Amino acid sequence: MSPSTAITPEKILSGDRSALARSITQAESVLPQDTINTRELLTALMKHTGHSTRVAITGPPGAGKSTFIEAFGNLLISNGHNVAVLSIDPSSTRTHGSILGDKTRMTDLSRSEKAFIRPSPSSGITGGVSPGTREAILLCEAAGYDWIIIETVGVGQSEVAVRDMVDCFLLLLIAGAGDELQGLKKGIMEMADLIVINKDDGQNRDHVKRAKSDLSQALRLIDHESGNPAELISCSALEKTGISDVLGCIEKFIDREKTSGRFLERRKQQNVRWLDDLIHRHMLNLFYSGGALQDQRLIAEEELRSGKKSVFEALDLVVNSK
Amino acid sequence: MSPSTAITPEKILSGDRSALARSITQAESVLPQDTINTRELLTALMKHTGHSTRVAITGPPGAGKSTFIEAFGNLLISNGHNVAVLSIDPSSTRTHGSILGDKTRMTDLSRSEKAFIRPSPSSGITGGVSPGTREAILLCEAAGYDWIIIETVGVGQSEVAVRDMVDCFLLLLIAGAGDELQGLKKGIMEMADLIVINKDDGQNRDHVKRAKSDLSQALRLIDHESGNPAELISCSALEKTGISDVLGCIEKFIDREKTSGRFLERRKQQNVRWLDDLIHRHMLNLFYSGGALQDQRLIAEEELRSGKKSVFEALDLVVNSK
Repeated sequence: MSPSTAITPEKILSGDRSALARSITQAESVLPQDTINTRELLTALMKHTGHSTRVAITGPPGAGKSTFIEAFGNLLISNGHNVAVLSIDPSSTRTHGSILGDKTRMTDLSRSEKAFIRPSPSSGITGGVSPGTREAILLCEAAGYDWIIIETVGVGQSEVAVRDMVDCFLLLLIAGAGDELQGLKKGIMEMADLIVINKDDGQNRDHVKRAKSDLSQALRLIDHESGNPAELISCSALEKTGISDVLGCIEKFIDREKTSGRFLERRKQQNVRWLDDLIHRHMLNLFYSGGALQDQRLIAEEELRSGKKSVFEALDLVVNSK
Repeated sequence: MSPSTAITPEKILSGDRSALARSITQAESVLPQDTINTRELLTALMKHTGHSTRVAITGPPGAGKSTFIEAFGNLLISNGHNVAVLSIDPSSTRTHGSILGDKTRMTDLSRSEKAFIRPSPSSGITGGVSPGTREAILLCEAAGYDWIIIETVGVGQSEVAVRDMVDCFLLLLIAGAGDELQGLKKGIMEMADLIVINKDDGQNRDHVKRAKSDLSQALRLIDHESGNPAELISCSALEKTGISDVLGCIEKFIDREKTSGRFLERRKQQNVRWLDDLIHRHMLNLFYSGGALQDQRLIAEEELRSGKKSVFEALDLVVNSK
């Protein structure tokens, strides 16, 4: 890497957007040298991290996440904040092309100097979340962003992993979804700190009113992990109404969490999970770094393919060779 | 385990439903003894596996997957087949309760002696798919089921893993979903061998007609992994129309795959992925089986929690202790 494109702690701290983008790419990489560089960079930056509010925004396709994040992000910026949006795209694993990279999404926000938008392909390793997402949060914090929004698409595995990286988990829904959708949200609703029903506008208002009443009943039946049921609120991202109420709810939630000590305890717990992920990744590297084992793995594959060995016999060929 | 509840190869082969259910539970378990038992059981049964048609049915919430699988499964049974349905439920990771276990789903099918329905919680390890799904497929085959349907809910990580376990990947959609939903399907559509638009009934027919025309145009732009674009067809699971056409499409697809040699090559490739998963799991067990390392991990956690060590320093405490 030439000196002009080198990623230095100073460049990240100065808010150099290109350096930040490249540092996240580096954090997402599984190449040994990139892992070492990321570790060095983060070690130098660690004392400049941790000060942001980390919020996950998730919801089923069609809930209006982009429109909501655009309205919400612009409100934060007008309140004097700097906003980083990290979008996790679960559908792009195979092709490594990220549909969230579409420039037409969040056009307003993406033009702001106070916003940094980063689509990331997801990875199979950690259940939908890129191996570099935790690192990306810290890098954005060091670069001066004091609100970090993690956007996930779809409802599934990635949300469980993302819950483990944020202070507040916001679930965005729309009214009038079918019964099956209501069912699907069960596991997710137990994780949500705040449920926002979007598209509370026009002819949709009656639907939203009914959905709020239904949901608030359902929420009372849910055993929320914090002991408190999720807050329920509606807004229209399109008409930009209710957005500041959502912000108010998040801030109230964070305050309550800080007072109770849960905020700090959760962040500590999240660090422990991060440690376990790092141990896990280290082991994988360790195991496969031996060339003999790689060779043995190829021999086992050949035996398996030719039908000479069952999958269990092929396994023995690899693991007993060590 | 008492002799009467012991899982034997003979019981599985005789179609003992209770033994089959318990053998899948055993395959999903990560306990060392369960892993050993599963391996022994599968080794004994291996020659009775592989003869089924393995189909994944996936689609967004609300597409009518349960209704479709009920209609499709009943058709298969009336054609003389035995059908196993393995449902992967990505939302139940945290609670380990499976919403798909709901008895009200697929009521007709679940009453049939020719059908075996098994909801499984998903796991973080393999990106939404339970560690035992591959094993469950083989166990169902040994028990005499010649059609295996893997149902996944939602759109995301689990589909990528499931694609790697089946012969045919069927994507169930409905007409009239928003633009964002269309976008989300991009990665999934590249994996689909067959796209079925459900709810082609009543007032919805015009929507379906338009959606078919839109989709068939979109499909031409997609670089499908098989080189052939996915087949596109519509049906009404509710009115049970078009279901046999779907079956015909699947059978035609499988025939074509067998003729081209892709069917066998894919199954071989899937076995290799299975081998890699087994190696991966074996390594994890190996690493953590040492008690000293476990202790070191707890010390590292304590240092991390107290703030005395950064996550990277804590990592060193664990990995350099070996």
